[in-house]
This record gives sequence, structure tokens and C-alpha cells, in this order.
Amino acid sequence: MTMMLVEILCVGNELLSGITMNTNAHWIAGRVAAAGGTVSRITVVRDELAAISSAVKESLARKPGILVITGGLGATYDDMTLEGVAAALGRPLVLDKKAAGMLKNSYKRRGLKYRINRVRLKMATIPQGATPIENMVGSAPSVAIDSGKGTKIFCTPGVPSEMKDVFKKHVLPLVRRQVGRFSAEEANYMVAGVSEAMIAPALAKIVGSNPPHSLYLKTHPRGYLKKPVMTPRIRVQLICKGDDREEVKERHRRVSALLLKEIRRLGGRLEERRRRR
Amino acid sequence: MTMMLVEILCVGNELLSGITMNTNAHWIAGRVAAAGGTVSRITVVRDELAAISSAVKESLARKPGILVITGGLGATYDDMTLEGVAAALGRPLVLDKKAAGMLKNSYKRRGLKYRINRVRLKMATIPQGATPIENMVGSAPSVAIDSGKGTKIFCTPGVPSEMKDVFKKHVLPLVRRQVGRFSAEEANYMVAGVSEAMIAPALAKIVGSNPPHSLYLKTHPRGYLKKPVMTPRIRVQLICKGDDREEVKERHRRVSALLLKEIRRLGGRLEERRRRR
Repeated sequence: MTMMLVEILCVGNELLSGITMNTNAHWIAGRVAAAGGTVSRITVVRDELAAISSAVKESLARKPGILVITGGLGATYDDMTLEGVAAALGRPLVLDKKAAGMLKNSYKRRGLKYRINRVRLKMATIPQGATPIENMVGSAPSVAIDSGKGTKIFCTPGVPSEMKDVFKKHVLPLVRRQVGRFSAEEANYMVAGVSEAMIAPALAKIVGSNPPHSLYLKTHPRGYLKKPVMTPRIRVQLICKGDDREEVKERHRRVSALLLKEIRRLGGRLEERRRRR
Repeated sequence: MTMMLVEILCVGNELLSGITMNTNAHWIAGRVAAAGGTVSRITVVRDELAAISSAVKESLARKPGILVITGGLGATYDDMTLEGVAAALGRPLVLDKKAAGMLKNSYKRRGLKYRINRVRLKMATIPQGATPIENMVGSAPSVAIDSGKGTKIFCTPGVPSEMKDVFKKHVLPLVRRQVGRFSAEEANYMVAGVSEAMIAPALAKIVGSNPPHSLYLKTHPRGYLKKPVMTPRIRVQLICKGDDREEVKERHRRVSALLLKEIRRLGGRLEERRRRR
């Protein structure tokens, strides 16, 4: 298991005005985590050239292994992701013949008799040196770019089905390859009678006595039972991670036992059976 | 109507692992937009001191009017938002008597007989010079900080009900006051027979011939009708904004008429009646 940091940059005014829920970032984060990678940051910027290009530059300076950019690849005046990426990399935009061919294919595949005019060719105009990826669901090709600074950039459409197709086929395999052997074990304990503050010292001690990144231990408040007396409820989430299946299982057993002992000591009780994934 | 830029910084590993959908950022963005403000960026970082403090520093350098930070105010080992903010501002963390009183109140109000111990007092330990805001829903006080650099910082809990209460009472009035007179008019046209690429030149022309920020004009692809022939569907969203109610209405009428004319010219038809808000 090797560290693989992924950043997500989402472009679109609709994500910054409460119009569209950012389900793309949520979905990507879940897939990366399940593969053993770590999403270190999500950034959302407006459809503005300067905002996009500075967000890309800032991300590259933090040197994630992968930067996934969603949105802004279409044909309309406010689609300027590729222009922003090109500016950040100091490269020109060029009309790419392969990308234009992919665009034609995507129309043909869906029985659309569109003329490939100037407006549509904007979707095939990509940063110099970039590799286009055919859109098997919609029109605009995605783009893979080696930044030359340790970060592989993927620009995908903002339409969820189009983004997911490219992510699963081109980004996820890269995460898996880099992470290597990876195993995880999760448990969630629904606890009544223990507050976050009550269990905080025990959690800090458990996390401190295990190797960094080997476990994710977090409490989530779930309000209060009001009768017969005010009783706090929390969810305690434990995820153990590592190279080796048996080692992860063993750590999971050990930490679970410690947690349950601590919950009992604090006078808490489990409300439901733990779930595993 | 004056420009009011707002940035949102969300702190929490759960937002970066696909565990929790970032509904907080979505909700805040919607409220800010409805008040005439502009959310210029959303950033999500992990529960890591360096990540939090550098994200705060970067945001302050962009000089938004308000920076809303959610999450990481609790009592557990991984709650380190205030430490990160203090580091970014170069200020020490101090135990605040008023905040400690608020914490006591919040327990008392809910009939919780907790002892105010060291672990709980972490929630009342805030950056020097910050103003605590009582949590009327949960425990941890929120914090308002004048950065001295043109940005007002609000740190709120990550629990949605607690965040919303503070946001509505303390942040939104500030946005409204700064924005001043504000009026908006929205229409959504569901169009069949016109693709984004087909209408793109018309949209660019309309936006270019109106004052900056006076209108928001965006197309959202909605897939294709497959029978009798492949037909693209889009939603065209128009929001007109400005100081003056009558002026906004007039611009809305004018741009709507232009849009409908263009849609007809391109052979499109409206699928549903437009909605207004």
C-alpha cells in the first residue's frame, strides 16, 4: 500500500449558487477511498478563466499524484476549463485531430447528424501535448495531461454519467496501480450514553498508538435521546487500512475490542449491531 | 447592489472519502446567491492542521468579504479548525471565558449534566481576539473573527442544524447589508431540438451585450429523445440580477424574448412551461 494523493477540482457556477449538488466530488472521493487512495482536497471554482488557472497552479504546487478536473468542457461561452489548464501549464491550445475524430464518432454512435463546425471543434481544442479520451456517453472528449511535475491531470465532463465512465476506465486503474496491495475493514458502532467529548481522550490514545494512516477513527454526533433522561448518541466509525489482509483484520479485532471496552467503561451501550463492508 | 464575495471552507475527512455529502456547502451557496452575494470558491480539506491553516491563508490572500468555515469545532482529537485558523492568522489560542459560559449554557439548556472538564474546554479555546457565538442547537460555540485584512471569518460547527442556525443569524444579515438593494428574476426553458453547441453563439452574444454580472445564462444538457429521431434536450437557465426591481424585470423580458426567438430560429420547441421563482 503506497500513498496516492488525489485532488478534485470542480468547475461551474451552478455548484457555487446552490443550484447543483456536487455529487461528482462525492462519488469520486468514495471511489478513490475504496481503492486505498486519499483525496486530499476538493476545490470548486466559478466559470472564470483566472479562477480555473490559479486553482490548477495551486494544486500542482501541492504535487498530488492525480488532479481530476470536472466540468467546463462543452461548447458554450462559459466552458473554459481547457483554456484555464493550458494557461496554468503555459501551453497553447491546439485543435487536436484525434479529438475531432472522437467527437465525430460520438455523434455517429448516437445517430446525431451534426456538422463539425467551429463551435463544436472547440471541444476538440486541447492543451498541447494532451491526450484526448473518447466520450462514450456524451460528446466532449476528456483529456489526460502529464503536467511534467509529478501530477497527472484528467479533465472530464461535468455530466455525471460521462465523468464516471472516464473515471472508472482511466483514473481508477491508475489509483489502484499506485496504491498496490490494499485491504480495509470497517465497523460502525451506534452508541447511546457516550458523547464525543467523553470518548475523545480514548480515541486520541488509540490513534496515537497505531501507525499513521493505518486507521480512521471518527465520531459522528447523532443527537440526543430525550427520555427518560437526556442521553447523547454518537456513531463511532472505525476503518482499518493496510497492505496485508490478515494484519488489517488483526488490527481491526484489537482496536474494536479496545473501543467496546472503553464504551462500556464510560457507561455507554450499543444501539444496533455494527455494519461491515 | 454591491459585490459581496464569500468563500466556503469545509473541514472533515468524511467529506473527502465519500462518506458524507457536502450538503453544507450547497446550502450556504444557495442562501448567499439568493441574497445577491457570490460564492467565489468552495474548498474542502482534511482534518490536518497544515491543510487547514494553508487553506485559510490562501483564502485570505484572495480577499473575500466573508470566509465561512464549517466543521472541526468539536472536542475530539481530530477537531483542529480553530488551531488551524489561529496559525493562519499568527494568533495564539486562548481559553475564552464567554465561550466557556456559552458551553455551560448549552448543556444546561438541554438538561445535560456534564462537568466542564479539560476536554470540553477545548471547545471554548479560540483564537485571540475572536468573538464566540453561542450554539443554540448543539454544544460547540461558533467563532467570528475579523482577520484585519478585509475578510470576516466565521467558524461554524459541521452539524448542519448547528451551522444553519449561526449562518442565518450572523452571516446572512452581513451578506444582505453589504449587497444592499437586490432583485432577481429567473426562468428555465426546457428545450427539445437544440443542443448546447447549437445555441452557444447566441448565448455568448446575449451575455456580451449586457452589463457584467447582470445576467446568468447557462445551458444544462438533459440527454436525448431517442424517437422518432435522436433529438437533443437542454435546459436553458436565465437569471437576471440588479439593484432595481423594474430594471431587472425589463431586462428579463427583453432577454427572454431574444432567447425564445433564437430557440425557434434553431428549430427547437419548449417542452414545459417555464418556472419562475
